[in-house]
Amino acid sequence: MARPTPLSGFPEWLPEGRVVEQAVLDTLRRVFELHGFAGIETRAVEPLDQLLRKGETSKEVYVLRRLQAEEEGSDAGLGLHFDLTVPFARYVLEHAGKLHFPFRRYQIQKVWRGERPQDGRFREFYQADIDVVGDGELAFHHEVEVAVVVAEGFAALRELGVPPARLLVNDRVLVEALYRGLGLDDVEAVLRCIDKLAKIGPEATAELLRTEAGASQEQAAACLELAGIAADDGAALLARVREVASARGVAEEVWGAGAERLARLVDEVNARVPGVASADLAIARGLDYYTGSVFETVLEGHEDLGSICSGGRYDALASAGSHTYPGVGLSFGVSRIVSRLLGAGLVGATRAVPSAVLVAVTDEESRAASEAVAATLRTRGVPCEVAPSAAKFGKQIRHADRRGIPFVWFCGAGEDGTDQVKDIRSGEQVTADAAEWLPPAEDLWPRAVRT
Amino acid sequence: MARPTPLSGFPEWLPEGRVVEQAVLDTLRRVFELHGFAGIETRAVEPLDQLLRKGETSKEVYVLRRLQAEEEGSDAGLGLHFDLTVPFARYVLEHAGKLHFPFRRYQIQKVWRGERPQDGRFREFYQADIDVVGDGELAFHHEVEVAVVVAEGFAALRELGVPPARLLVNDRVLVEALYRGLGLDDVEAVLRCIDKLAKIGPEATAELLRTEAGASQEQAAACLELAGIAADDGAALLARVREVASARGVAEEVWGAGAERLARLVDEVNARVPGVASADLAIARGLDYYTGSVFETVLEGHEDLGSICSGGRYDALASAGSHTYPGVGLSFGVSRIVSRLLGAGLVGATRAVPSAVLVAVTDEESRAASEAVAATLRTRGVPCEVAPSAAKFGKQIRHADRRGIPFVWFCGAGEDGTDQVKDIRSGEQVTADAAEWLPPAEDLWPRAVRT
Repeated sequence: MARPTPLSGFPEWLPEGRVVEQAVLDTLRRVFELHGFAGIETRAVEPLDQLLRKGETSKEVYVLRRLQAEEEGSDAGLGLHFDLTVPFARYVLEHAGKLHFPFRRYQIQKVWRGERPQDGRFREFYQADIDVVGDGELAFHHEVEVAVVVAEGFAALRELGVPPARLLVNDRVLVEALYRGLGLDDVEAVLRCIDKLAKIGPEATAELLRTEAGASQEQAAACLELAGIAADDGAALLARVREVASARGVAEEVWGAGAERLARLVDEVNARVPGVASADLAIARGLDYYTGSVFETVLEGHEDLGSICSGGRYDALASAGSHTYPGVGLSFGVSRIVSRLLGAGLVGATRAVPSAVLVAVTDEESRAASEAVAATLRTRGVPCEVAPSAAKFGKQIRHADRRGIPFVWFCGAGEDGTDQVKDIRSGEQVTADAAEWLPPAEDLWPRAVRT
Repeated sequence: MARPTPLSGFPEWLPEGRVVEQAVLDTLRRVFELHGFAGIETRAVEPLDQLLRKGETSKEVYVLRRLQAEEEGSDAGLGLHFDLTVPFARYVLEHAGKLHFPFRRYQIQKVWRGERPQDGRFREFYQADIDVVGDGELAFHHEVEVAVVVAEGFAALRELGVPPARLLVNDRVLVEALYRGLGLDDVEAVLRCIDKLAKIGPEATAELLRTEAGASQEQAAACLELAGIAADDGAALLARVREVASARGVAEEVWGAGAERLARLVDEVNARVPGVASADLAIARGLDYYTGSVFETVLEGHEDLGSICSGGRYDALASAGSHTYPGVGLSFGVSRIVSRLLGAGLVGATRAVPSAVLVAVTDEESRAASEAVAATLRTRGVPCEVAPSAAKFGKQIRHADRRGIPFVWFCGAGEDGTDQVKDIRSGEQVTADAAEWLPPAEDLWPRAVRT
């Protein structure tokens, strides 16, 4: 077999990289669980008609076929999920009778998209989602809640060396009111144009608004002015919206309720995680999908990555007949974050293996004694491994060093036959008893740290 | 949208079931890491030629196609992996220059097989694998090591209420020597027949041995007698092999080395995890793949499930040119185990959500005070959630009760305005301070327990 080569768009990490990814996943899971979100997983496949029901062909779904399927069977028409929101909506409908609402869940799984791979965009990647779904209704405070959980998630990730994140918030109710107030009724067309603003600039966007959304030159200018509104707190937001709207002749009773929602969200999130959120009326992406708050998140100094955690409120994603399950949620792009952390050398692992200790083997006859020491250490929660061969101690120490294992244990190495343990970083070697010795807490498990 | 129905073969758990599955996965991960195995993940897809290179069409590979692929692109000819061994062998070859050998890794991921779903057999399921792979050579003690890790894994699972497991071990070197010693050279044909023994019985197996493996009536009888050998320790194994082999005229120099390997393995594993392993010469499955020890595992009282953890030593799975990476490993069938635990009601979750505490809300105006209590509890590692509405306290308590949340927190409920916390199981309500109170350790997180 020839040496295989990587598949573009399907990232794989070496053990050191996986330590970092696992630390990110464990950190998010802990934050989600501290907030009482229940973990679920859904199957990787969904019926194609479900995957495509929002017209999501742009997501480039991967379709499955059994190699030996001679006829269409029960697994015909299945595709791999491209996100965790569509499967979650299906899960809620399928299991509604057995769930308790509001249902608060997190879900950490891989998803697949057959898109052209590029920096930060993969064909297989991890998402970590939280959502709250109600039965028929969903209180506004859950929109605040998911934003706070995300902000706390990013705060916890900072301890691993992840740069600070900034939550950019918009509200569908507000922008719909504003654009309608300007006399533009095809709000989705307006939003599709505004979505291109960052990429193509204001002049081309204005031209697009005229040709695609039927805007006059003045309406286009007003749209751009509105999209330019950004504010770090609710009062500033309200002042800016009032200023622009009154200059453009849009009355406060039109936009007031929406602006109030957004101002309250920004203020309540910042009250709980200071300075993390700001209003940004240019956030347009996915707005056709959402019905309330909309979120994007950028990593400071890495804005080129695009949004690394997005979501919003959706009132109509899951519904059976007249029964609806409105929800709000956000999705961390874990692979996008981790690939940047590793690729830019921001975060690394303290070592490549779990072992804090390598138990040396004096000779093969006494391997059982080394195994006994390792077993004792493990019962006390110390990850360790026994040397693979009774090589010279210098070689065994190099074996540990190459893997970043900080301690090497020598059975019966003391003058009186006691065991000794060496910190191979400092060279310090001390008498130790496997039933009592512990490594320093920061050496117990591999950690992800700023590099 | 109509209420969706389950897809046969693609299991999904309710939150309570996921608590059990997560507990099984966390338990195995901890055992693997305490033994110093490094966690990795591989992509879900492999090139079809890799997936099929061992002629594994029986595994019913799922092939991928991009919905919008108009021509064959870079992801043409990809299939979902059907196990974690083939991808691991590829990973080792691809990254050999960056790995340190012997490389000890665990890998916990879902795999897919388009097989007919039945009890304990799924189209999508979790496997949890450990393997040790050497560069050119691999010491025998690693065969012992992986068996010990598996045995300790099952021992740890017993604390969740999983029934005891029994490791059944055979050795390819031994059975090949014995069957050749009987004058049967097509050892793989013999093994394929023996593999059917449990299902079709000795008479039909003898007939098969005659027609498929070219055995005489006497050779067939000898094969069955050998396959009947089982022993709980090395000495008993050696005695039984000696007895049968000498009666059938097979000299000890033919089978001695193989029997010694198997006897030593059983004894060393039992020395470290007493009574867990026994030799069983009828274990034939997968032997064409393996070159040394072969393992199967049965759950006591649930032998009908078949093997729930299988593996063995393979010397030729990963090789590039003349360079080989011999390995030994085992794979836990996590979904098979979990589906039985849940289906038979053996193990359940103490609650469906992480929250140990529901912080009640007196009125919507004071929601921020309840959120502040929750935030304080979380900084101290107590998972909690705030009631979704300021309903009557009785309704808020029922909200907690339905989810199995043991404690409800009432802000300012004490006579002097102090907080109080109620254990809703006993009804006991006491004064508490969020900066000091902790639930009993067994209530802190949801647990999987015998039901």
